[in-house]
Formats: sequence, structure tokens, C-alpha cells
Amino acid sequence: MRISKLLGERLKNAPADATAKSHIYLMRAGYIKPVSTGIFTMLPPAQRVSAKIQQIIREEMDAVGGQECLFPVVMPREMWDASGRYSAIGNELLRFKDRQEHDMVLGMTHEEAATHAALNIIKSYDQLPFMIYQFQTKFRDEARPRAGLIRAREFIMKDAYSFHMTQEDLERYYKEVYDAYVRIFQRVGLKKFISVHSDGGAMGGKVADEFQLLTDIGEDTLVICPECDTASNVDVATGIMEENDHIFGVKQEIFTGEAKTIDEVCSHLNKSPKQCAKAVCYAVVGDSKRTIIVFIRGDRQVNETKLRALVGGEVAVKDLEDSGLVKGNIGCVDLPLKEGMEVYFDKSLEGLENFVTGANKEGYHYQGVSMTRDVKPEKFYDLSKVAEGDKCPICGAKLVIKNGIEIANIFQLGTKYTSTMGLTVHDENGNLVNPIMGCYGIGIGRLIASLAEESSDDKGLSWPMSVAPWHIYLCPLKMSDERVKAAAEKLYKRLTAENFEVLYDDRDTSAGIKLTDSELMGIPVRIVISPKTLEEGTYEITLRATGEKIFARDDNLTKKLDEIIVY
Amino acid sequence: MRISKLLGERLKNAPADATAKSHIYLMRAGYIKPVSTGIFTMLPPAQRVSAKIQQIIREEMDAVGGQECLFPVVMPREMWDASGRYSAIGNELLRFKDRQEHDMVLGMTHEEAATHAALNIIKSYDQLPFMIYQFQTKFRDEARPRAGLIRAREFIMKDAYSFHMTQEDLERYYKEVYDAYVRIFQRVGLKKFISVHSDGGAMGGKVADEFQLLTDIGEDTLVICPECDTASNVDVATGIMEENDHIFGVKQEIFTGEAKTIDEVCSHLNKSPKQCAKAVCYAVVGDSKRTIIVFIRGDRQVNETKLRALVGGEVAVKDLEDSGLVKGNIGCVDLPLKEGMEVYFDKSLEGLENFVTGANKEGYHYQGVSMTRDVKPEKFYDLSKVAEGDKCPICGAKLVIKNGIEIANIFQLGTKYTSTMGLTVHDENGNLVNPIMGCYGIGIGRLIASLAEESSDDKGLSWPMSVAPWHIYLCPLKMSDERVKAAAEKLYKRLTAENFEVLYDDRDTSAGIKLTDSELMGIPVRIVISPKTLEEGTYEITLRATGEKIFARDDNLTKKLDEIIVY
Repeated sequence: MRISKLLGERLKNAPADATAKSHIYLMRAGYIKPVSTGIFTMLPPAQRVSAKIQQIIREEMDAVGGQECLFPVVMPREMWDASGRYSAIGNELLRFKDRQEHDMVLGMTHEEAATHAALNIIKSYDQLPFMIYQFQTKFRDEARPRAGLIRAREFIMKDAYSFHMTQEDLERYYKEVYDAYVRIFQRVGLKKFISVHSDGGAMGGKVADEFQLLTDIGEDTLVICPECDTASNVDVATGIMEENDHIFGVKQEIFTGEAKTIDEVCSHLNKSPKQCAKAVCYAVVGDSKRTIIVFIRGDRQVNETKLRALVGGEVAVKDLEDSGLVKGNIGCVDLPLKEGMEVYFDKSLEGLENFVTGANKEGYHYQGVSMTRDVKPEKFYDLSKVAEGDKCPICGAKLVIKNGIEIANIFQLGTKYTSTMGLTVHDENGNLVNPIMGCYGIGIGRLIASLAEESSDDKGLSWPMSVAPWHIYLCPLKMSDERVKAAAEKLYKRLTAENFEVLYDDRDTSAGIKLTDSELMGIPVRIVISPKTLEEGTYEITLRATGEKIFARDDNLTKKLDEIIVY
Repeated sequence: MRISKLLGERLKNAPADATAKSHIYLMRAGYIKPVSTGIFTMLPPAQRVSAKIQQIIREEMDAVGGQECLFPVVMPREMWDASGRYSAIGNELLRFKDRQEHDMVLGMTHEEAATHAALNIIKSYDQLPFMIYQFQTKFRDEARPRAGLIRAREFIMKDAYSFHMTQEDLERYYKEVYDAYVRIFQRVGLKKFISVHSDGGAMGGKVADEFQLLTDIGEDTLVICPECDTASNVDVATGIMEENDHIFGVKQEIFTGEAKTIDEVCSHLNKSPKQCAKAVCYAVVGDSKRTIIVFIRGDRQVNETKLRALVGGEVAVKDLEDSGLVKGNIGCVDLPLKEGMEVYFDKSLEGLENFVTGANKEGYHYQGVSMTRDVKPEKFYDLSKVAEGDKCPICGAKLVIKNGIEIANIFQLGTKYTSTMGLTVHDENGNLVNPIMGCYGIGIGRLIASLAEESSDDKGLSWPMSVAPWHIYLCPLKMSDERVKAAAEKLYKRLTAENFEVLYDDRDTSAGIKLTDSELMGIPVRIVISPKTLEEGTYEITLRATGEKIFARDDNLTKKLDEIIVY
């Protein structure tokens, strides 16, 4: 490919809204172009990376017996009504009407479509297990698209669905796909990836794992035990908190005026958040009668995934206007309970003494409160997010918190889709049963962004060899020199004929621009031809990842390149 | 692939609504599964055919310098407002609002996206020409989806867009892509395809060609000259009609009562439609004041593409209720013209004598009318569809009418998109000009259906070798015989290890079912293993396309297969 004709511009500056390294470099190096919020055109270099990643994934999916299909982007409402997700999923599921006024959705995931594909085709136990997968455009109408390909609204996803007769068989296969995922990430050149336990709830299952790239800019919070290597998304992580001190205080009501937030109250009373019990109020989506009040220690945050599981429904932070509670002054002593109110105490409050909590009247709090003397809740629930320093529930080591980008996830789905959509097969005894499903996703765009995030430096991108859009950046300096130009044209033709993937910088522009662009674009191998190299009869080869320089002559160039371009 | 695990069922009967051969066989053989009207899941065999077709197209697009991109499925309204197509295109463009209430469309074609991709990147004449292409899901909300993949609402399309500095350069490149298309259709094994001139109007250009598969079930009408090989879609075809007889008659008003249609009037008066002048009335879409009345010979049909060009706007057959005209009795003698009415005479009426036309009053017609004596129109326009027997305007031979399925189209677009969307580049003199575009589409699903339509017989499909989902159908008969089973398993492993693409019928079912299924699915090469072949020490190879039988032994099987599997 001649760079003069390549659709993709090298920019000096990133767009103002780009802060993530991958977003900046993919924009600056001409890989992606924004079309709308969270919607991008993949320019030719990105499409080449994407195709290589897809091929690696395809090979690994085929190796675990996958059958490639293609499910539709546009699906009828009925299919999503059957699974219950038409109403259960929020605005990120894009709904619209077709010209016949029929309700349709844009696929954000394809469990329904995969189950539908098997319906009336798979009838007997001996047709199982099987796995079907696709690469397909997904649309998720994210509230806050961000960071380029990291959180886009439209993206390509590889999604796979397996069907099994028994939970044991699913678990066996789940492990096979897990191992295939590890091979995929190794083959595409990802380095700092880990798997963490995650929440399968949204997809309808129990066991779920995510593959995460560890990076400070990641949106996901991961809880990692450095001793036993257990890792979980904070949504589902459990940890053991240090015990609270058992020093009693004297309970008294105290004027706190305008102090409402934990920070304001602590500041006013000269206390630490650890000495407070705060209330967080939630509504249960779809059930306007219920009000959930969670009491939790002031330094802790509610884990809404755990809360959802406890209350059995989607929760949303509640406006207190009509509840009769005094915002900022809610406390766990003598709380005036109304109909539909449910109160839960987090474990962080177990044994807490001499603490501050709201007095349930405007402008007042209590201090010196004792959990065992003044509140005496029947039960404490695990409802708080794990924090740095909590102990690993398995080995007792201190847990570490890190950030990650979720690049893939795998779920044990159970029979949620097969039972609701009526997929049944005859078992060996002739009984009709619902197959048990697993599903397995990888976001291609996010994986590209993750590689760009990890394999880059202050000069630009530095693609792993296996997914680089081209392997060689042919970089003649001083194209106005006829000898340089002739040598470059000749080498371009030779390398192309030898099936090397070459991006040929055929522009008559400065050495500075060419060298900078080659680094920005992240092509792994650069070959410089200049009056000097011609004089010396050598080619100057530079490796993007290490900066290492290698010199070759006409007669050993192919051999050297074959040694370098390995993956 | 073991057929026992293949997602795809072989059905005895086609669904009731399937009439096209491709639709019936693709459904019966387990290639596609309907999800909603005009929306299908591509089951694994179809996805394999699709991938092979895509790879052939990709190679040919790359060979003419194409750069593969990926444009989004979902695009913002603004992009389509800029080109004017947001309002110009009807209901087949699916419009919806995203969660931010922003107007969006589902891409039915990507001229806007391709132009947007080049915007601010392509700035100078030396970056042109270039061509970008993609394989992407399209959604066209067709009013009448039909015949499975032949007219679907969602489908994969390869669409390409080229940009040029001059019309000459576009024409040169247009011819290059044309030749690439011919190679593509030859390589995928399509036989009866032709190219025809077509209407570029909808895309904004003038020159356009379609590639059509000749088949009786095609929806498109093609006008073909068997002598000089000129071929056109009937929409744009011109032909020379035989001259009308010049035998005068006596004009007289005659009671025709309830006879309104041409057939009724002809039957009533014992005349042929060739002796009548009928009126067809149209509204101009978006201009309620205009009424178009076309007079045309009774045996002819109005070509609406030509009419659109004449009146300069979209036309629709008009309801006559408020026009003051007498439906069924409109005639070209003394027509009471009202404001906004425009009357055009088709060439079929030139020199017509002794004909019948409405008397413009309820229940009456004129007969014996003379065009030169009683009507005397200023001009005759070419507004009728070419009919069988009209003469070729180039060589004078009699034209033939055939039906076709449009599988691809290519357009010279001009500057419609670059000028409206503001894509300008500096020419060699530093002046800003709009590049001239070409666009080039191939519908993958329709191409699969066309191949299925053409390469099939009364037993089922018969894929060309180059796109067959698998090359070999390994067909052991009597799997209950342990020797047969062992031999089949061994051969399956051997052929797979030798990189043959094998569909292995590992079911323990009747020979009849297996042989029938192998023919229905259309796998080109079948290898039968049975007690008899084992005894004889041979494999029985049958070619699906010809029925030819070839026998091979263990030691020459690979060689024979290598000779057979050529493409």
C-alpha cells in the first residue's frame, strides 16, 4: 500500500475530547473517524487490524468446535418479549418501528437469536453439545459513550452460544472456551490481561467471568488478591473488613444545621467517615411501592449488584421528596418506617459503637450511638463494595484494587433463554428438557483499543506483529534523490512480490515527518533507504517495539525479515 | 464437520410461502432461517458460502486497488440531510430516534459515509484516485420482501466508492471495476449473467449498469438485442416501434356503458388494444398542483422512469376523484383541461388512425378517431416500455424481453455527494474542485440466492466448487456395520488432516435419507462407503453436478480428489 493513496491522515494534535491514549493515537494515526457520538468509521488500517484479530478468534472458535453463523442486526420485538428482555432492558436497547409499524430492536447481544436459530432444528440429545458463533455489528445505545473504541455505541462483537444437556457438560465446555480466550489474547499480543469473576445477572446466569486489561484508565474496578490470585469485578467481590472498635459512647442529639453529606457532617463534628452510619435510599424499578434504605458505614459505598440480588430487582437511587424522610438527616435510630419501606444494614456497621447517624429531623444528628445498644438490627448483609485493604475471604491476604477495561466475558446462562423461548430436546429417556446455555463475547473494537492502550509509548502506537496492519514501513528518505526513489520502488515491488505486507511511504516529504509518522502508526518494522544507506549498500531496519537497529544487504534482507516477522 | 452436530435441518417440505427455487432449497437444506419478514439468520452452511464469496470479491477489489474499510450501520440524520436523501428517499430508509432523541438512520447504502470518510483527509489531487470498500449489513425496509434472500430487508452488501479528479479517470476506473465484476461472477460460478444499462437516477448519476442473472423468476425486465448484444433494464430501454397503419376512420361517439378498462372497451367494441389510446394519470410527489396525463396506445405500458425524467420528479398513479375527469372515459379529443394539468402523448400514438379513445363523459367513447385530423399534438414523447418485437435502436434487430435478478450494480455518480457534503480537493493549479465519484455494489445474499437458483435441479442445490460450503460429503451407508463406521471415521480424519473440506454424515440413518440429503445440500463431491465398497476396496465418488461416478482406492484417492476439486 502506497501511503499517498491511503485513506487516513496523520494528525499532529488529537481532538480536544480525546483523553485515553488509544483514542488519541487511533485518531491521530488515521485508524478511526468519528461519525456520530460513539459511532466510528474504521479506516483501512483499523479494518486490517480488525480482520487479523477476527481471523485469530475464528481459528480458536473453530478449534473448540464452533460453527460460524450470522444472526440479524434487526430483530422483531416478539423474540425479546419471549425472553422478557424487551421490557427488562433499559434505553441501551434501541427500539423502533418499521414501516409496517412493527416493533423492532437493534441487536445489542444475540442470546434470543441463537436460541431461535436452534428452535425446531435441535430436537434430540445426540445433537448436543454444539456451539454457534458470529461476528456481527452490535448497537448499544450507551448513555455515556467515551474514549473512542473503548465505549462505543456501535461495534463488532464475536459472540458465541453453546448448548448442553447437563450443567457438568456446560462447565467442561466453559473451561475449554476460557482456555481458547487465553490463547486468543496471547496470540493478538495482549500482555496485562487477567480474568475476574463477574456478575452474570444481567444475562440471566450465575457463573460469569470477564477478561480485563489492567490499565489505570479502565472504567471497571477489580479486586485482586496478590497471594492466592483470586480476582473479581468489584460488583461481585467479597472481602473481610477489619472489625470495628468496641468503644462505647454516650448517645446524644446534636445540632448539625446545614451539614447533610457525610463530609459536611464529619467536618462539622470533627469525626471520620468510619464513625458514621449513612443512609442510601433506592427505588425498585417497576415497583413504585417499595423504598429500600441501606445503612452503611460512612467510608463505604453500596454495591448495587449485591443490592439488586438481595431485593430481587433493578434498583435506582431514589428521590426522597414524597417519602417523609429528611434528606441528609436520615438515621438508624427510631427511623419512622412507612408502608413499603425496607431497611437493610451493611456488614460494615456490625459492632460499630460511638458513631454518628441522622436524627430523622431537620438539622440534627445523633452522636455516640451504639449498634448493639441503640439499634440492634436482626441481621447484617454484605452490601458494600470491597475497598483496598479488606482481606481476601479465601486466604486472608490484603486485597488490592486495580482498574481494568473489560475486553471479553463468558457466562453460564442456565436455561433462561431455552425455557422462556420454548427450546426443548428429548433426553435419552425420551423426556423433554431445556438445554443449558453458555455465552461468550469478545468486543473487537475494544480489543483493538486495549492493544493500542497497552502497546504504545509517547511516540505513538506499536502493534504486536500478529495484528499489525502492515508488518513493514518502507521509508525512503529524500525521495527527490532519483537513486533513492528508484531503490525504494524496486524494493517495494520485491517485498510485495515476496508476500511481505508493506506500507510504502512514497511521499516526497521531510525525513522528520516520515519517521514520526512511522512511529505514530506503530508499524513493527521500518526499513530506511537513504543516500547514506545506498552508499553503504545496506538497509537500515528499526524495530518499533524496542528501537533495535539491524542492518541488512540485498542478499540477506528476506532472511532477516523472516526472522523478525514471527508471530 | 459432523452432520450430527450441524445446526441446520434437512426438511422434506418447503414453507408454504416459498415459491422461488432458491428460497425453497435454502430453507429445506438448512441454509437460512427466517427471523422476521425479509430478515434471516444465516445458518453455518450459508455463512460458509457467504465467506467464500466475500473472499473472492475481496481479492478482486484489492486487485483494483481497493482499500477495505467499515462504515457504520447507524448514521446520524445530518449526514443524509447534507446529501438531500433524508427527505428524498421513501419508507425504505429506516429512520428512528436514539435515546437522546437524535434522528438516526439505518444505512441502506453508504455514499454519504464514504464521502464523510474522505472529508478533511483527502485534500490534494495527488491523493486521487482511490477506492474504498466494505462488507456491511444493510437494512432496506422493503414494502414487499419476497423470495428469501432475493429481496430481503437485511442483507450483507459489498459496496465500493471511488473518487476521481476527472470524468475520464472515472470512466477508465469504472471499466476496471466492471471487468473485476465479470471475474467475480465467473469465479463464484455464475453462468447466465449479463450486464445491462440501467437507471442511475436514484443514486444521483447518469451512467449506470446492472449485472443480472437471467432467470424466469427475476423481477426485473430486461430488453436484449440478440444481434448487437446491447442490453438494458426496461426502465431505460429504448426501442423502435412498428409504424401504425394509416387507415382513416369516421369519428363517432358511441355508448360503451360500464366498459372502462381497455379490455372491457375492446371487448365491447370488438377492437384490439392497438386500436385504442388510453390515458394514465399521475400525481407529482410533493407538488399537489400538478396532474400528469399520459396518452399511450392501449397495448403499451408507461415507463415511469422515463416519465420521472420528463416531469422532473417522482410520480405516482393518481386518484382522479377531485380532478373533474371521468375515470375510464378519459380521451384525447376535446379533453377539458384544468389548471395544473399537463398532457403528454407517447410515441406509440404517432400516426395512429381509426382508434378508440374516451369521450370524456360517463358511458361514452369515440371511435374512428384520427391523430392527425382530430388531435394534432405538438410532440410525441418516448414514454412507453419497450415490448418484445420492438426494434433495436442501434442495429434494427428485433428486441427480446427477458427476466433477471439484479445481483450487482455500478454507477457513475458525478459530484452529487462531494458537492453537497463539501468534499473539495486542490487541483494541480491550486483550485478547489469536487472529486467525481463512482459506486459499485454487490448483494451477497442475493448472489447466494442467484447461485442457488441457477445451480440446482429437481433434487436440490448443486454448488459451484469455488463457493461450496464443503467440497466433500462423506457418506457411509449402514453405520451400524462396525467396519463401515470404522472406515468412515478413519477416512474423515485422513481427509480433514489433508485439509479437504468434509461434511461427514455420521448419522445412523437410512441410505435413502443420506443420499437425498447430500443431493439436497448440493455438496459437489460425494464419497460413499458401504459394505460393498469395502469389499471391493474402493471408494465410490459421485459428482453432484453431472452424476458422474469415479472409483478410487486408498492410494489414489487424494490424487483423484485433487483433480476433481479445482476452482
